[in-house]
Order: sequence, then C-alpha cells, then structure tokens
Amino acid sequence: MQKVLVVAVHPDDETLGCGGTLLRLRDEGAEIHWMIVTSMEEKNGFSKDVISRREYEVDRVAEMYGFSEVHSLGFPTTHLDEVPLSELVNSISAVFKKIQPNQLFLPFHNDVHSDHQYAFAAAYSCTKIFRYPSIRKIMMMETLSETDFAESSRGGFVPNMFVDISKQFDRKMQILKVYESELKPHPFPRSAKSIECLAILRGAAAGCIYAESFVLLKELL
Amino acid sequence: MQKVLVVAVHPDDETLGCGGTLLRLRDEGAEIHWMIVTSMEEKNGFSKDVISRREYEVDRVAEMYGFSEVHSLGFPTTHLDEVPLSELVNSISAVFKKIQPNQLFLPFHNDVHSDHQYAFAAAYSCTKIFRYPSIRKIMMMETLSETDFAESSRGGFVPNMFVDISKQFDRKMQILKVYESELKPHPFPRSAKSIECLAILRGAAAGCIYAESFVLLKELL
Amino acid sequence: MQKVLVVAVHPDDETLGCGGTLLRLRDEGAEIHWMIVTSMEEKNGFSKDVISRREYEVDRVAEMYGFSEVHSLGFPTTHLDEVPLSELVNSISAVFKKIQPNQLFLPFHNDVHSDHQYAFAAAYSCTKIFRYPSIRKIMMMETLSETDFAESSRGGFVPNMFVDISKQFDRKMQILKVYESELKPHPFPRSAKSIECLAILRGAAAGCIYAESFVLLKELL
Amino acid sequence: MQKVLVVAVHPDDETLGCGGTLLRLRDEGAEIHWMIVTSMEEKNGFSKDVISRREYEVDRVAEMYGFSEVHSLGFPTTHLDEVPLSELVNSISAVFKKIQPNQLFLPFHNDVHSDHQYAFAAAYSCTKIFRYPSIRKIMMMETLSETDFAESSRGGFVPNMFVDISKQFDRKMQILKVYESELKPHPFPRSAKSIECLAILRGAAAGCIYAESFVLLKELL
Amino acid sequence: MQKVLVVAVHPDDETLGCGGTLLRLRDEGAEIHWMIVTSMEEKNGFSKDVISRREYEVDRVAEMYGFSEVHSLGFPTTHLDEVPLSELVNSISAVFKKIQPNQLFLPFHNDVHSDHQYAFAAAYSCTKIFRYPSIRKIMMMETLSETDFAESSRGGFVPNMFVDISKQFDRKMQILKVYESELKPHPFPRSAKSIECLAILRGAAAGCIYAESFVLLKELL
Amino acid sequence: MQKVLVVAVHPDDETLGCGGTLLRLRDEGAEIHWMIVTSMEEKNGFSKDVISRREYEVDRVAEMYGFSEVHSLGFPTTHLDEVPLSELVNSISAVFKKIQPNQLFLPFHNDVHSDHQYAFAAAYSCTKIFRYPSIRKIMMMETLSETDFAESSRGGFVPNMFVDISKQFDRKMQILKVYESELKPHPFPRSAKSIECLAILRGAAAGCIYAESFVLLKELL
Repeated sequence: MQKVLVVAVHPDDETLGCGGTLLRLRDEGAEIHWMIVTSMEEKNGFSKDVISRREYEVDRVAEMYGFSEVHSLGFPTTHLDEVPLSELVNSISAVFKKIQPNQLFLPFHNDVHSDHQYAFAAAYSCTKIFRYPSIRKIMMMETLSETDFAESSRGGFVPNMFVDISKQFDRKMQILKVYESELKPHPFPRSAKSIECLAILRGAAAGCIYAESFVLLKELL
Repeated sequence: MQKVLVVAVHPDDETLGCGGTLLRLRDEGAEIHWMIVTSMEEKNGFSKDVISRREYEVDRVAEMYGFSEVHSLGFPTTHLDEVPLSELVNSISAVFKKIQPNQLFLPFHNDVHSDHQYAFAAAYSCTKIFRYPSIRKIMMMETLSETDFAESSRGGFVPNMFVDISKQFDRKMQILKVYESELKPHPFPRSAKSIECLAILRGAAAGCIYAESFVLLKELL
Repeated sequence: MQKVLVVAVHPDDETLGCGGTLLRLRDEGAEIHWMIVTSMEEKNGFSKDVISRREYEVDRVAEMYGFSEVHSLGFPTTHLDEVPLSELVNSISAVFKKIQPNQLFLPFHNDVHSDHQYAFAAAYSCTKIFRYPSIRKIMMMETLSETDFAESSRGGFVPNMFVDISKQFDRKMQILKVYESELKPHPFPRSAKSIECLAILRGAAAGCIYAESFVLLKELL
Repeated sequence: MQKVLVVAVHPDDETLGCGGTLLRLRDEGAEIHWMIVTSMEEKNGFSKDVISRREYEVDRVAEMYGFSEVHSLGFPTTHLDEVPLSELVNSISAVFKKIQPNQLFLPFHNDVHSDHQYAFAAAYSCTKIFRYPSIRKIMMMETLSETDFAESSRGGFVPNMFVDISKQFDRKMQILKVYESELKPHPFPRSAKSIECLAILRGAAAGCIYAESFVLLKELL
Repeated sequence: MQKVLVVAVHPDDETLGCGGTLLRLRDEGAEIHWMIVTSMEEKNGFSKDVISRREYEVDRVAEMYGFSEVHSLGFPTTHLDEVPLSELVNSISAVFKKIQPNQLFLPFHNDVHSDHQYAFAAAYSCTKIFRYPSIRKIMMMETLSETDFAESSRGGFVPNMFVDISKQFDRKMQILKVYESELKPHPFPRSAKSIECLAILRGAAAGCIYAESFVLLKELL
Repeated sequence: MQKVLVVAVHPDDETLGCGGTLLRLRDEGAEIHWMIVTSMEEKNGFSKDVISRREYEVDRVAEMYGFSEVHSLGFPTTHLDEVPLSELVNSISAVFKKIQPNQLFLPFHNDVHSDHQYAFAAAYSCTKIFRYPSIRKIMMMETLSETDFAESSRGGFVPNMFVDISKQFDRKMQILKVYESELKPHPFPRSAKSIECLAILRGAAAGCIYAESFVLLKELL
C-alpha cells in the first residue's frame, strides 16, 4: 500500500495543487497524509474568529479527503524565513520518519511566496535515500496565485507528469468550496473558473477531461 | 502608426497565438500584416478540395482581421527543414524590408513542430537593428497543440508580457470558427474550450477577463 | 501620467542602473520616485562624516533628477539578510500602496551583493496584480560592480529591453559625479569609463549612441 | 501488459542506455521492442565483413533480450542530418502506430553525436497524445561516450528517474560483450569498467547496488 | 608559487571534492590551505568523544596533505543559516586577505545541504577582483552525498574542468580512510567504491585513469 | 609548446573574438593556427573584386598575427546549413588530426548567424578526448554583431574566463583596420569604439585595462 504525503504550506495548497490526485490515490487504495506547515496565531495578528474558522475548515477538509492523519507543524505563517532551518527540517523530518511516506507532493521551488520556498527547501533536504529509504517519488505541484506568479526569468513551472483526475474533479471542487474565504471571482487567480480552466488545459495536454500536473523531481523504481 | 507583422507558419497560428492582440492593435490604429510561411500543395499529397478550402479560409480570415496585406511565402508545409535556410531567410527578409514592421510576433522557438523551429530561426535572424531598423519589438507567441507539447526539459513557454483582449475575445473566437477543420472537441488541444481556458488563465495572471501572453525577446525604446 | 519607482538598495544604484531612463521618463512627463532600501548608521561603524556626506549626496541627486519623493526605508546596509523578510516586505509594500507605481526598476536577482538579492525578492513579492493593481511593468536593471560579478553558472544578465538615453547620457554622468567616493578610475568597475562603455555597447545593440538595458520580467498591456 | 520501445540510433545504445531496465521490464511481463534507426551500408564505406558482423550482433542481442520485434529503419549512419526530417518522422511514426508502445526510451537530446540529436527530435515529435494515444511515458537515457561528452554549457544529463537493475546487471554485461568491437579498456568511455562504475554511482543515488537513470520528459497517469 | 585554498564546509569535503587535485598541486609546488567553515560543539549536542575524534582526524588529515595552514572558522554545523551573512563573509574575507589565495575550491552552489549553499554564497561574495586581487581562479567541486542529491530541476553538476589525479588517487583514498565514521559500504554514497567509480568515470571523460572534475566559475589569465 | 587553433567562420571573427589572446599566446611562445570555414565564391554572387580584396586581407592578417598556417575550408558563406554535416565534420577533423591543437577557440553556440551555429556544432563534435587526444582546452568566444544579437531567451554569452590583452590591444586594433569594409562607425556593432568598449568592460571585470572573455567548455589538466 502506498503512503502519500502532501506538504501544504497553508491549508488549501493541498487541494489547489494535488487535490484530485490525492483523491484518486486514495480511491486506488493509498493511505494519504496532510502536512500543514504553518498556522495562524493571535500573536501574529489573526483574530480568534479567523483562527477558529480555519480550524473548522481543516477538520472538514480532512474528513472529506479521508486523510489518515493531519500533521500540523504550527510554524508562523508568512514568517518561515525567521525560523532556523534546522528547526523546520527537524520538524518535517520527524513526520517523515514516523509515517514513512512513499510519495511526496511539495510546493514549487520558485513559488513567489517565500514560505513556499523555505518549506520546499526544508522538505527536499529530507529526501536522501540513505536517510529516508521509504521515499520513492518526489513531485512539485502548482498552486494557483503562487506558482503562476513565479518570477519569469528564473524558469516557470514546466510539468513532466500529468494525472487524470476526471473522476475526482467534482470532489476537488466541493472541497475547495470549504475554503470559501480563499476563493474570489475571476480574474482573481484562485477562482472556481481558473481552477477548472487549469484542469482543462492540463487535461488537453494529457488526453483527458481534467488533469493535474506536476514536476517529477525524483523517482526510484 | 505602428506596423505589426505576425509570422504564422500555418494559417490559424496567427489566431491561436495573437489573434486578440492583433485585433486590439488594429482597433488602436495599427496596420497589421499576416505572413504565412507554408502552403499546401498537390505534389505533397493535399487534395484540390483541401487546398481550395484553405484558400477560402485565408481570404475570409484576412478580411475579418482587416489585414493590410497577406504575405504568403509558399514553402511546403512539414518540409521546412529541406528548404535551404538562406532561401527561407531571403524570403522573409524581403517582406521585412518591404513593409518595415515595428512589431513582430514569432512562433515559440521550442514548439514541437519543426516547421515552427525553422521559421522562428529564419525570422529571428532578420531582426538585427542595423539591417532592419524598423523592428522595435520582437515577441514569441504560444500556439495550442504546439507550444504546450514543447519538450519539458528544454524549458517551457514562460510569458513575460500579457495583453488584455477582453474586448477582442469574441471576435477571436469567431475567426477561429472559420478554421473549422482545425478545431475539435476537448480534450483535443485546439478546442474552443481550451482556447477560452488559456485566455482565462492568462487573464487571471494579468488582472483581466481574457488575455494573451507572450515572451518578449527584445524591445527597443 | 506614468508613475515610476526605482528600488535602489544603496544610493547610486538608481543612477548606474537606470539613471538615463529615469531622466527620459521624466522628460516625457512621468512622475519618478526613488526608494532607497538601506542606510548607513553609526552603530554599524559608519562615521558621522560619511553619513552626512551621504545625506548631502542623496539630497543633491534627488534634486538633479526631480524625484517627486525619496522613500528611505532605513534598513542597515550589508545586513538585509538579518531583517525578517516580512518586515522588509511590509516596508516596501507600504510605499507601493501609497504611491501606486506603474513601472518598477528592481536590482538584478543574481547580483553578487546579498542585499541586492534580498531586496529584489522582497520587492518582487509585492507585485501580484490582484494586490497591487497599479503595477504594469517590472524590470531588472544592471548595476556595474554587482551585476557584472554575478555568478556565471547561475545565468548572467541577458537584457531583453533597451532604452535610448542618448539625450540623457550627459546628465546621468553629471549625477554620477555627485557620488565621487563611489567612483574610481578604470579598471575599477564603477569608473566613468566603464559606465560610458556599457552605455555605448548597449547602444550598439539598440541602434543608438547610448542606451541602458533591462530584463523585462512582466508587462501588462 | 506494457509495451516498451527503445529508440537506438546505433546498435548498443539500447544496452548502454537502458539494457538493465529493458530486461527488468521484460522480467516483469512487458513486451519489449527495439528500434534501430541507422544501419551501415557498403556505399558509405563499410566493408561486407563489418556489416555482416553487425547483423550477427543484432540477431544475437535481440535473442538475448527476448525482443518481440526489431524495427530497423535503415537510415545511413552519421548522415541523419541529410535525411529529410519528414522521412525520418514518417518512418518512426509508422512503427509507433503499428506497435502502439506505452513507454519510450529515447537518446538524450544533447548527446554530442548529431545522429542522436536528429533521432531524438524526430521521435519526440511523434508523441503528441492526440495522435499517439498509447504513449504514456517518455524518457531520455544516457549513452556512455555520447551523453558524457555533451556540451557542458547547454546543460548536462541530470536524471530524475532511477531504476534498480541489480538483478539484471550481469545479463546487461553479458549482452554488452556481444558488441566486443565497441568496447575498449578504460579510460575509453565504453569500457566494462566505466559501465559498471556508472551503474554503481546511479545505484548510490538510488539506494541499490546497480541502477540505470533517466530523464523523464513526460508521464501520463 | 600558487596558493590554493579549499573551502570545506565540514571536514572530508576537501578530500571528497578535490583531494587528488590538492595533492597534485602540492606535488607541483603549490602552497595549499584548508578552510573548515563549521565545527561540532557540545552545545549543539555532539559528545566530547565525537568532537575529539574529529579533532584528531583534522590534525591527521592536515598532516597527510601537508597543508600550510588550517583555517577553522568554527561556525556551528547545520546552523549556518542562523549566522548573519556579514559575520560569515567577514570571517572568510579575513582569511582571504591574510593568505591571498590564487585558486579557490568552493562547494557546489546547489548541494542539497543548506550549509554548503550558505558557505558558497559567502565565499563567492569575497572574490571581486578589485577587493581580492590575488584570486585568479574559482571552481566548484562535487561532494558525494551532497552534490549527487542536488535538486534535479535546478540544474545538476555539469563539470567543465577535469584534473588527472591518477598519481594521487591512492593517497586520496588513504586520507579518506582517516574519516572512517563518514564512510560506509555501497550503496551509501560516501563509500570507497562510489568514490573510486566517480574518479574512474571522470577519468573516462578526460582520457586518464582517475580524475576529479570541477565547474570553473571564473579564471583570470 | 602550445598549439592553438581558432575556428573563424568568416575572416575577422578570429580578431573580434580572440585577436588579443592569440597575439598574447604567440608572444608567450605558442604556435597559432587559423581555420577559416567559409569563403566567398563568384557563383554565390560575390564579385571578383570583393573576393580578391578578401584574399588580400586574409594574407595581410595572417602575416600580422604570424600564424603558422591558414586552413581555409572553402565552404560557401551563409550556406553552411546546406552542407552535409559529415562533410563539414570531416573537413574540420582532418585539420585537427593534422595539426593536433591543444587549445581551441570556437564561435559561441547561440550566435545569431546560422553559419556560426553549424560550425560550432561540427567543430565541437571533433573534440572527444579518445579521438583527439591533443585537445585539452575548448573555449567559445564572443563576436560583436553576432554574439550580442543572440536570442535572449536561449541564454546569452556569460563568460567564465578572462584574458588580459592590455599589451596586445593596439595590435588587435591595427589588424582590425585591415578589414576596413567590415567596420563602420558606432552604433554599428563592429566599430572601433564598440570593440574598445567591450575590451574595457571585460577588463573591468578582470582587473586589467583591456581583456577578452570566453566561455570555457572543457579543460583537461
């Protein structure tokens, strides 16, 4: 049985980036895990209401996916650069060692949000085969409103792996609705319309109705 | 007044790649020109019917855009690699020297179709400022079914210029309908749905309803 | 009327990188703004004399350009890596929100000076169209003694935009003289000779006597 | 059942590049196919002896792998640039359409040998999902004496997929011995020693005794 | 006489990356220097035994190479991101100014270990010719278990310089044995077998029995 | 004694690209060779006068450098793409085998002129150490009016090797005057002014008055 872990810097990244694929892998028998790297805290200016709304969303979404476990690391959102890298690495490493995932979905390394960049670097450094022998497949995902705003001259997101999510697409959209505060109408990049259009275009490249796409960084067969 | 030239390897590339932008530039007063690099010929196995259908399409499309002139170079389609580069260059150069364009829209250099690659190389070699002083802006465009199939490890199409075509989008789609034989239903990459989705996604990146996007190669201000 | 903002990590970057272009834009009617990210402070070992000399230079240069406003962020020079990124971002963001610039000139992302790298990253993260709708054009500039020492294997400065500054070049050189302590004779890279040679070579590529060149990262039309 | 096809420009490329992987895939039940793009001909200066020796090798090797079929295209070795691309494409396309492979192993696009570059381009252009729906996985392989001499500044072979061939390695080496004229002692790059060392190093990166590595260009799941 | 300095983030990097080359340069009359950027400290959880074992190793290795001097900077291992960059730069700069090296061997900028990345950046920023006129040649080296795990999509280690170490290889292996705790059997990447295989493959590319390879970043002749 | 060969696609490339370096190498005792890949022919539309003027220039320049030998391959200028690659390779290979050079100066692989691209590819394919053991150092040079017009998005010329030509610069300029028909006043890119400015800027990067710069592709030490 495959164990799959998605590294979501903020809740909703997992759904935007690989929601359909997670559902499909679970449909096919995999055990799926959700790591949430950051959290909102009152001391960083988030209201109790916002925080408890977010907690509700996480619980609701976790249930809809059927995640085996949610791994909240609790680092302060928009402040990952201030966390010593060794702390971030140790925290991620502890989860990897505990659940021993086979497949990892990571944020795209050039996402414009610095939290995504730091989380990617920390997670990627926990993938050496001789330390983490369970990890056989490492992918970067695309997160609308971050990946599409990556700096053009550093190289954009050019996928080499496409997953048919035609049967899972409706459920992905249902889950996204839970994050109602994060979505807005087009042309805001996290709109139902954008999300569907991206799935259609990736599908056109892959010969199916809806797809998600990824950059495979390493696979061991 | 700006003179704008699009280098279309095959008819419909101009519309897929920069149809909305051409319409907008003409709306704003520019003179627009259409170069068609290749043509179908009976000796290459195309039937008279297909050829005359294509001629009708070109005439109809030229009229709908209001192109000042159509420059058909007549090279054999899917055989550009067999044409001596100097012949291709001379033919393109003659048009550049005659109409003295200010803006060029070229195919993407990594498009999977070799005709696109050869046409790009030939056209780009006709852009040195000291030989072609009229040319001030050079862009590569994205052509669904070619650009989206470019080889991932050579670097994909990562745009740095976005043009709002919200007011021109309907006309672009009307023109595309002329090429009915080239379009098919989704997930075929040249479908009405794909084309709209791409315009929506590029719009989301640019803060507008519909956009086309480009790689600016050089601009002289 | 265009509003233009240059992000200078240290005073003189604005003149080395885009002095002629700023003058030309102002000649053409734009409102120009100067953000100075860092400042010298006594606690970091700079003498009162050096600091007040620098203040004089900034005042004098601001006047010569006719900047509408100078935005000094006051971060400690050569210590930007120690500033929490969110602080740097918030400070830059506040200026962007206040003046609502249309065009941004940023340091080159691979400049050898880490201050340039951090300032670029912070400023670039403040350019999403849905948060900063005024920003329509984002460019990186080349700063002699930093850009020309960027690490070769990361990719050098390869410009895609050239601005004719033949009419502004003399004024650019006058302004540079204000920073007399920063210039030294050739082969020091910030010499009057080097600066002129770079303008001549960029001019040769652009068909004019003197030019400045840029990497366009994004333009929305 | 998976159908796998390797595009070998010259016989022995299939073994150097993916011999162990082919054996493993066949061990696991796949049907494996061998395309040989070029052949030696008397008119190009090869002696009858060399040609018949080569034919013997091909037969012997085909048998040792258990290839379902050998597809010899018969293009002149070291002269692929002189073949019209459409001819090369048509010839490759015909095989793809006939056998409908699911997985493709192609030469590395930057291999120093121009035959490898032309064969790669032609084969890659036959992989669009809407024309070749059987093809779900496309990889580039590394061929000692070609890939390791690729031009450094164009980007070297950086694998993202590793296949454990520990159980197949001995058979791979047995097959290589058939091509005795192609192997020479170290430091010649096609030596038994080099080939083993490469497999060991790729194994060290993948946590196994011997591995082959690939650049995955596209996978559709 | 050439002065050569290797920047080893951790002891053993110098030997893995350029041990043979250092020995050869010393054989040819150069003065060689060893900078060790980090050290183990009790407060970071290393036992006295481990620390004193490491000190013994450093002394033993320094003697075997005949280093003119060992420059231990003493920064905490795996915590370089927490050190202000200016502190790291000042510490490295002081050594460069004192010994005035002509040739520098640096870690590879994309090594997966963040300590390697920070040490590279700090050291590279101390190489401007107008501040450090002695430095004429700057190279990056490959460190097994770090360089071979660099993220594939950022660009791997593609060497442009090869040094024949056939006469020094045995001594390199002798020195590596001093670091017995760092080596393990294959497929661990720092094994005697891997190290030999890498030297053999680099030799095959360079026409000699054993070689080390490098990325030349800058040479001034 | 070092044997040095420059591959000039057209006469004057050798001087623009590495004239000062050739003079310096000869000053230091090297034997220098000039390969001229193309020639003008009456059948390609060049007048007898132009051809004999060019012959005079080649003779005069050869004498001024003190070349040991001029190797004119005689391929038709601007038509290299029509020459079978094997013919071009064989012709270049024959010279390499005859004179056994140690250092090669090649055109930049992305030069906008297709002749430069084909000549580069052919020459580079003749550098495998096991076939051409004399070749120890391979560099690409920058040719004003070709290299500076390379397509920006393919990667520009980013040098990693700088040669101080302060003592040779005047002689380089003397030689360039022989090619009077090829030079024109600034802003034409092949002007005395541009050439001097480039040498000054490369000098500023290298700490000397005048320099030429190169991309080192491979060095074997």
